[in-house]
Amino acid sequence: MKIAGKPFRTIWLHADGKSVEVIDQTRLPHAFAVRTLRDLDAAVDAIHSMVVRGAPLIGATAAYGLALAMAHDACDAMLANACERLAATRPTAVNLRWALARLSERLYAVQPQQRCALAYQLAASLCDEDVRINAAIGVAGAEVIAGLWDHAGRQRPVNVLTHCNAGWLATVDWGTALAPIYRAHDSGIPVHVFVDETRPRNQGASLTAWELGQHGVLHTLIADNAGGHLMQHGMVDMVITGADRVTRNGDAANKIGTYLKALAARDNGVPMYVALPSSTFDFSLRDGVANIPIEERDASEVRFMVGQTAQGNVESVRICPPTTPARNWGFDVTPARLITQLICERGICAANEDAILSLFPEQR
Amino acid sequence: MKIAGKPFRTIWLHADGKSVEVIDQTRLPHAFAVRTLRDLDAAVDAIHSMVVRGAPLIGATAAYGLALAMAHDACDAMLANACERLAATRPTAVNLRWALARLSERLYAVQPQQRCALAYQLAASLCDEDVRINAAIGVAGAEVIAGLWDHAGRQRPVNVLTHCNAGWLATVDWGTALAPIYRAHDSGIPVHVFVDETRPRNQGASLTAWELGQHGVLHTLIADNAGGHLMQHGMVDMVITGADRVTRNGDAANKIGTYLKALAARDNGVPMYVALPSSTFDFSLRDGVANIPIEERDASEVRFMVGQTAQGNVESVRICPPTTPARNWGFDVTPARLITQLICERGICAANEDAILSLFPEQR
Repeated sequence: MKIAGKPFRTIWLHADGKSVEVIDQTRLPHAFAVRTLRDLDAAVDAIHSMVVRGAPLIGATAAYGLALAMAHDACDAMLANACERLAATRPTAVNLRWALARLSERLYAVQPQQRCALAYQLAASLCDEDVRINAAIGVAGAEVIAGLWDHAGRQRPVNVLTHCNAGWLATVDWGTALAPIYRAHDSGIPVHVFVDETRPRNQGASLTAWELGQHGVLHTLIADNAGGHLMQHGMVDMVITGADRVTRNGDAANKIGTYLKALAARDNGVPMYVALPSSTFDFSLRDGVANIPIEERDASEVRFMVGQTAQGNVESVRICPPTTPARNWGFDVTPARLITQLICERGICAANEDAILSLFPEQR
Repeated sequence: MKIAGKPFRTIWLHADGKSVEVIDQTRLPHAFAVRTLRDLDAAVDAIHSMVVRGAPLIGATAAYGLALAMAHDACDAMLANACERLAATRPTAVNLRWALARLSERLYAVQPQQRCALAYQLAASLCDEDVRINAAIGVAGAEVIAGLWDHAGRQRPVNVLTHCNAGWLATVDWGTALAPIYRAHDSGIPVHVFVDETRPRNQGASLTAWELGQHGVLHTLIADNAGGHLMQHGMVDMVITGADRVTRNGDAANKIGTYLKALAARDNGVPMYVALPSSTFDFSLRDGVANIPIEERDASEVRFMVGQTAQGNVESVRICPPTTPARNWGFDVTPARLITQLICERGICAANEDAILSLFPEQR
């Protein structure tokens, strides 16, 4: 997608042919900065500290992390160690494990001296594939938006509520939940997006609002608390989010608070969509609430808030008393029964095992 | 309740016998400051700018606002004007209108020269009554907590989730939703409170966490998004909130986001309580979602966040891009069907018209 008119991806190979460059998402929206990852440590840190985030982009960064490790030392021990360290950065997103499994299988199968070149080739191809997949999600999901526009008599914009950032910044390009919005917008369908700020890290306020603004999509920032009220009053036509892991029966782990929006959508007859690449499915799990591991992050993310002062400085401010204890779960699981449909690159299906497996017959 | 061991109310008559003093809640938790209200303008501003907030305290401040107006000029026109200006400060809380109607009826009934003394007397008595009422809510609600403690075999603290601040800072003393917690805690029942930060104004992080900390009640600050996850995993024994207006059938307007927590409570079999003084009932309304007016506040409350820097300064920081539009609804309505019971000074009842009217037979 474009930033100030210039096309960007979120991750790309440096001109030196070895280092990897990423947009530093911890500095948005107050500064646009590119960070260069020169080794495995830098890739591990970028994922862990959320310089890059979003399940698909985490997978892509892990792939390049393996390539950086192989460029340093391509022995079996380094490959195993790199996989282990990268896998430990974030527990919930399954794309990370998927990308590591896919690449390491191919890398173990060749001689160490071939691994470096192959790893870069596989990482690049994983990134290109991510872009194609998200574009396909956009095409499939835009039809849903077009249908809602028709249903409203093409008289007003389609109102979409989204939580967190599942835009192009969460992927290599296009996004998952936002891909249908960009596609619909680009094809002339008027779309207006209610953007949940997404506490505690404010990915909605800092990333989704930023990328929608850059692309010229109408949007309104709201507190995470507001969505139920909007749905009660008919102000939301559909909810769409991304996912960090979806079980074979359709339970979806996504940013903490997604479950609350899904409950409100169900209570008010608003359709709830989850958009994901097939790599976000975890076909080994059935019960998402019981079995998807939920990352607990540092309490400081709840106790402090980062923003820009009137003087233009980016400052962290404490919003509670100095001694207040806090806890910080990063994700929750929306049970399949609350999800209207899943949108993936193979098409759209109901959130149940039969419907999912009809798109993924190889998983039967 | 006590601050650093010293008993306080949230509002009291100044030693000059005319001015009114309030705790400035916009400065908590970073500073404890008392503001002196010397005239009607100051009272109007204190309510409008949320120096005082919480339905019962808004009512008490409005009562003293009338007294300040009568001290200046007790003619009919001033009385009418003061009522009108105070009523316009906040649209959702019904206690404001209740207090104004109750006092103005008595004031119109006497000669102007008697009004000043009577207004101060009525305001003081309304405050004393608020304290008695909230203490009674505490007694009734503490039995619910005691029951949950028994149910858990008295083996662990009772986990209560609350949203916004319905503590003693929202009232003259004791609080509504927190009164049962203080009463249970004081009687030796271990209680642990999950405190929703309550975006956009963070009354949970800045006020509830502060007052629970001052009183020594165990608590944990969480993002508003986290409650559903906690309830899915059995970490919440009950939800309790205050209310700004409750219809005769039990629909409850409260801080934006309360409805989402009520949905999660219902989905997970967690009991949902709403604590309120009888002055928060609006017996003239039946359909809360359709008929309770919902205040929309300035978008800057969503776009900016106030907190304390590492240097100790209180700063406002912008959390979104400079041009991002935002909207800011202050309340939502939880339908009665999602509320397990209402707790008021007359006792506990189900959230339906018959049960409510059995406690308020004079409203039949």
